[in-house]
Amino acid sequence: MKAKVAINGYGTIGKRVADAVSMQDDMEIAGVVKTRPSFEARVALDKGYGLFVPSKENAADFEKQGMEVSGTLDELLGDSDIVVDATPGDVGAEYRKLYEKHGIKAIWQGGEEHEVAGFSFNSEANYDAALGREHARVVSCNTTGLVRVLYALDRQFGVEKARVTVMRRSADPNDIKTGPINAIVPDPISLPSHHGPDVKTVLPGINITTVAVKLSTTLMPLHALNVKLGKDCGAEDVVKTFKSRPRLRLVSGKDRVKSTAEAMELAKDLGRPRGDMWENVIWKDSIAIDDGELYFFQAIHQESDVVPENVDAIRAMLELESDGARSILKTNAALGIKK
Amino acid sequence: MKAKVAINGYGTIGKRVADAVSMQDDMEIAGVVKTRPSFEARVALDKGYGLFVPSKENAADFEKQGMEVSGTLDELLGDSDIVVDATPGDVGAEYRKLYEKHGIKAIWQGGEEHEVAGFSFNSEANYDAALGREHARVVSCNTTGLVRVLYALDRQFGVEKARVTVMRRSADPNDIKTGPINAIVPDPISLPSHHGPDVKTVLPGINITTVAVKLSTTLMPLHALNVKLGKDCGAEDVVKTFKSRPRLRLVSGKDRVKSTAEAMELAKDLGRPRGDMWENVIWKDSIAIDDGELYFFQAIHQESDVVPENVDAIRAMLELESDGARSILKTNAALGIKK
Repeated sequence: MKAKVAINGYGTIGKRVADAVSMQDDMEIAGVVKTRPSFEARVALDKGYGLFVPSKENAADFEKQGMEVSGTLDELLGDSDIVVDATPGDVGAEYRKLYEKHGIKAIWQGGEEHEVAGFSFNSEANYDAALGREHARVVSCNTTGLVRVLYALDRQFGVEKARVTVMRRSADPNDIKTGPINAIVPDPISLPSHHGPDVKTVLPGINITTVAVKLSTTLMPLHALNVKLGKDCGAEDVVKTFKSRPRLRLVSGKDRVKSTAEAMELAKDLGRPRGDMWENVIWKDSIAIDDGELYFFQAIHQESDVVPENVDAIRAMLELESDGARSILKTNAALGIKK
Repeated sequence: MKAKVAINGYGTIGKRVADAVSMQDDMEIAGVVKTRPSFEARVALDKGYGLFVPSKENAADFEKQGMEVSGTLDELLGDSDIVVDATPGDVGAEYRKLYEKHGIKAIWQGGEEHEVAGFSFNSEANYDAALGREHARVVSCNTTGLVRVLYALDRQFGVEKARVTVMRRSADPNDIKTGPINAIVPDPISLPSHHGPDVKTVLPGINITTVAVKLSTTLMPLHALNVKLGKDCGAEDVVKTFKSRPRLRLVSGKDRVKSTAEAMELAKDLGRPRGDMWENVIWKDSIAIDDGELYFFQAIHQESDVVPENVDAIRAMLELESDGARSILKTNAALGIKK
């Protein structure tokens, strides 16, 4: 029997998690919840997902557009083993009471505060701690990207201090309402940014300070990392460590991946659904030790890097697999992530 | 008698230096050199600058467009006290022999190597060393912006280590041929970037590592600085130090300067020629001490921040003023830079 997963919120993250869940052999989609009709709802129906609405009043809008509604969120929760909340940031917290009423396990996204679940998740860093849990929060795209590399470095060399410049995309590619179109926006102006504390919700022992800006780009944020390691090592040792990790992809300028644009083109050429890049994209030729400190660049696909983490979180919380490394490999194999 | 200044290369920097020189009471424009006719050449003539060409063959092109040519570069150099070379990067070095033949003092821009002049200049950091010199190079826009703040911090607190992320504009606003339009480009991919070594051509004692990316923006590059200072101090001490410096402008998000776009709008509202912002724009509310280290954001107007430095370099090399601080104040007053 496959575990039944409800997806509440069928936007950028929700639709991707739904597809990734469908590709696993130990879980399936019980239904997806959407508030308003859209091309995305129509595609969901084409894929065979049951379409649910937050409350009965929303159903008429869908039916007017010729889209069949299977029921309400309430009904869906009653028929599912776990819900992935992918509603807009800060909206998810409002559903907490409803999920509790149904006694259903729930996973929130990084747009919510740590406190909504009391536990923040990353597949490699703390799968064990998620086993059997009622509530978890998968940290945001940038935080997931940072946790993946800092966890790897900390395990291998110890991280004494990480200083990161997070260069954020201003909008997702499908967002036509957001700026800037020709400026750099310190965001937040007051330093440091929240990304450092957010990393600590998963890796409490890491000493990290982050600053962030918002840019005229939609493709991928880029991180410039400076890390003071606990042990002396060379660039090649860091490359080796990154290569050993399941969701880090090394690329190279020599291989003509010279920007976030080419990194996304690579994902498309790999045949990835929606052109998604689930792994951190790390420039191998940027990895350098200078004045005793490690420097490198990585790009993060903000629309998709948390997707495999959501799948692993489901597996841990429902105890479908007790070993984190095995869950990661299983998720990766189902999605087609190859080293 | 005013000192006679030749401008070789009348593009982004050359035209601005010409105007800034014209605004001083101790120097004047002997002529400007342009290779091809353009609206900029026409405006130069309207301003009363003598228009010169690299060689006689270029003159016909101008005359065909109805623009009067006053002579050749050779003739201009024979009639000037100093030449500011603002030709495209790496082209300036080719003119070195010609300048030497004429025995004329020469100033190059940051697009050339340090070696072209053997001396790299910043008004605040090393005016004294430029007094009477034959050759100098005014460091690039980003390097000038870094030198201004690092010199100030080093004098006041000592700089033990500076780590900087330089977020570069991909093109100037008048450039229609350059990308990217929607991507982040690690540039260079191999770390660290050249900006650190370039800072050391002016401030050899500063321990600095820089990384750089190129962005979809034309307005201003932004620097995220992390500085380990030699003395403990608070954010307010840093604010005080920056306020005491002649070419640092503090802005604030609370005052609705929230991005490089608003910083440039401020320059326009101040009535600056071409909307230029000659000073570093530093976000006062970004200045923070975290984990014992200083963090802040600054934006640099790449088209204009080196302009007052060129004026001071002229004054030092021709010994029109022996005191650097006085030259800076004189230049600032003539341009209208107020604290």
